[in-house]
Amino acid sequence: MSRHRASLGTLLRHVHLNGPLSRAALAERMGVNRSTILALTSELAAAGLVREENPEEVLGAGRPSFVVRPETGRVFVLAFDVAVDRLVAARVGLGGTILDRRETPRPRTGVDLDTVVTGLAGLGRELFDAAPPGTVCAGVGASYCGMIRPGDGMVRYGPELGWVDQAFGTELESALGIGLPVAVGNEAHLGAHAEFVRGAGIGSPDLIYLHGDVGVGGGILVGGRLLGGEGGYGAEVGHMLVNPHGGRECLCGSRGCLEAETGEYALLEAVGRAGEFGRAAVRDVVREAADGKPEAEAAVAAIGDWLGIGVANLINLFNPGVVVFGGTLRELYAVAAPQVDARIAQHGMPVSRERARLLPSGLGDDATLIGAAEKGFDALLSDPLDVLLSARTSPARPPVAAPGGPR
Amino acid sequence: MSRHRASLGTLLRHVHLNGPLSRAALAERMGVNRSTILALTSELAAAGLVREENPEEVLGAGRPSFVVRPETGRVFVLAFDVAVDRLVAARVGLGGTILDRRETPRPRTGVDLDTVVTGLAGLGRELFDAAPPGTVCAGVGASYCGMIRPGDGMVRYGPELGWVDQAFGTELESALGIGLPVAVGNEAHLGAHAEFVRGAGIGSPDLIYLHGDVGVGGGILVGGRLLGGEGGYGAEVGHMLVNPHGGRECLCGSRGCLEAETGEYALLEAVGRAGEFGRAAVRDVVREAADGKPEAEAAVAAIGDWLGIGVANLINLFNPGVVVFGGTLRELYAVAAPQVDARIAQHGMPVSRERARLLPSGLGDDATLIGAAEKGFDALLSDPLDVLLSARTSPARPPVAAPGGPR
Repeated sequence: MSRHRASLGTLLRHVHLNGPLSRAALAERMGVNRSTILALTSELAAAGLVREENPEEVLGAGRPSFVVRPETGRVFVLAFDVAVDRLVAARVGLGGTILDRRETPRPRTGVDLDTVVTGLAGLGRELFDAAPPGTVCAGVGASYCGMIRPGDGMVRYGPELGWVDQAFGTELESALGIGLPVAVGNEAHLGAHAEFVRGAGIGSPDLIYLHGDVGVGGGILVGGRLLGGEGGYGAEVGHMLVNPHGGRECLCGSRGCLEAETGEYALLEAVGRAGEFGRAAVRDVVREAADGKPEAEAAVAAIGDWLGIGVANLINLFNPGVVVFGGTLRELYAVAAPQVDARIAQHGMPVSRERARLLPSGLGDDATLIGAAEKGFDALLSDPLDVLLSARTSPARPPVAAPGGPR
Repeated sequence: MSRHRASLGTLLRHVHLNGPLSRAALAERMGVNRSTILALTSELAAAGLVREENPEEVLGAGRPSFVVRPETGRVFVLAFDVAVDRLVAARVGLGGTILDRRETPRPRTGVDLDTVVTGLAGLGRELFDAAPPGTVCAGVGASYCGMIRPGDGMVRYGPELGWVDQAFGTELESALGIGLPVAVGNEAHLGAHAEFVRGAGIGSPDLIYLHGDVGVGGGILVGGRLLGGEGGYGAEVGHMLVNPHGGRECLCGSRGCLEAETGEYALLEAVGRAGEFGRAAVRDVVREAADGKPEAEAAVAAIGDWLGIGVANLINLFNPGVVVFGGTLRELYAVAAPQVDARIAQHGMPVSRERARLLPSGLGDDATLIGAAEKGFDALLSDPLDVLLSARTSPARPPVAAPGGPR
């Protein structure tokens, strides 16, 4: 790819992530002069990706600098999230705004690939067909709580639904049928990236995101880049062994894994609600603990203790600037912080933890969905003009003729 | 830095790491044409960094391509290693050859900064003064088993000698007195890099290096880059909590850390040799285990079990291509592989471990020293001509006049 095309992508990424920016600010951030910005902006504006505005509202001294903003209403991606209790789809505009969304509940277990793909594709088509005429779909991203092969979105292993080697990415692409590939990511990897670019971790390139649901997923940024490892399957924090002496059984077949000790089954069983599941139940227990109900307090403390061991280990290994708690861990951390902090103080090396901040997710329940949208935008932001050539204008159906003939 | 100067560094790095390469091979590896290689090589040869040779030995068809080789005998770095039982210094030539070395024993405990610095600087000066006239010292690197601040080589924490905030880098620079800064690194970080560029991990950019001595250090490469984290203190694998239920006391003040369960004190105590220490003693036990002595076999198995838990956790977290065992863990793994492998099979996710190879260090006891040398070469390989301007020609003393006047 030429330098020029890469620069178009860089400029577009700046306004996508930061919102409207003046030409002067863009010139400074990109380390180029204003005339280069002018040329790049013109080209992106002609392609319908950005719009320039005369900043009449600019006050103060100096020549006013035109403001460049992303065409949020015109260019979008479709984002999908396979959550533990529902399927979610969204149409997300350039700039990161969720423009439209659809959800449908799903059974907790026994759901096969076909059911998930058909459900998601249906929601996606609805969103695509409902998009305003002339708007452009530039990519598709999807989040799944499993180990995802980078090239084709194959779910190599997803213990929650018991999936092994299921061709999620290619099947969803085919069922969706809009001629665009589906970029699939592990939900916690996507959550980590989303928190870094739009959430609690902005400005913290060494970031750990922990996502709790049935299991506990992890996404880790090292120097601003997602830790993939040799095959893209890194950051399986949920299967770190924390309790080697008769720990709880884990969905993966082992025992004493971090997710077995801190996932929602552990919490709900500890308060005598074995058999229940779901975020609502977890939030009940957390509320009871916050209200001082002893059984809930004890359960939260015990689970917070294991979570603290896991986090202390991660701090020693990664020397992170920030650890973000997402999914049900967001609520759990709110009440279990004393236990987590105590374990970090006990097992974390002082130098490793001296600058690590522990924070709740800034994006809440949408962290993984927003991460999927960002993954959908990746290709566009790398090479905007090339992607636009293959993008799909929505809706594909011909405009409905108005009564009385064309206006 | 200009692109041209960076290209000089890139070419020099290729021959430094690979040894002699033809102009054609360099052109291909750097993605430039042969005339560019010719120009870069001429400039580096004029600076005395490389030498071109007419490859009379080239057989086969086609125009013979000149071979570019590093000036191993002329440009060197000084490398230092603070090992647990000795101080080591070496003069290492461009290309990575150890040209000369000095060692001196040191007490195991109660050694202060001044003693270490004075000892190392003395060895370093001897090497510098003994270098052939006209040779050039282009950098200095040092390895220390502690948490090292990247900017100035401050030892923030080194539990083995009980050091906290000791100005190792700046004091060694000053005591050495040759006008070059000392680039200090954590021994396992340096070992990881050395194994990646010259050892067991060549071609494996997702690499974990575990270094055993009194403690257990870790160096981790993610996508070919050393995991530093927010402050450069990443990969403290030795303080991962593996035994939360009454584990052994650790030098860090906690209990149940990986290094408390797998370091040499644990092994020697398990065979009734508490109070002893050192690699020789560890090797005794390993030899006894290999010979089938039951007490040694049981000790090795117990410790291998904890090591396996640690490695399984690291495999889940990093999805590495290779795990390299260095220091005393090299010998330990040779006899404890069954336990390590069993724990990985039990706790490592199949997808995470499917392509992970476990290997003994390719560089043996010199891994950390060679890593220190590579750190010393860093500046030269980034901007060769700039570094040469500040390099020191050795020896600084005037040549001794030969009897009968100048020849």
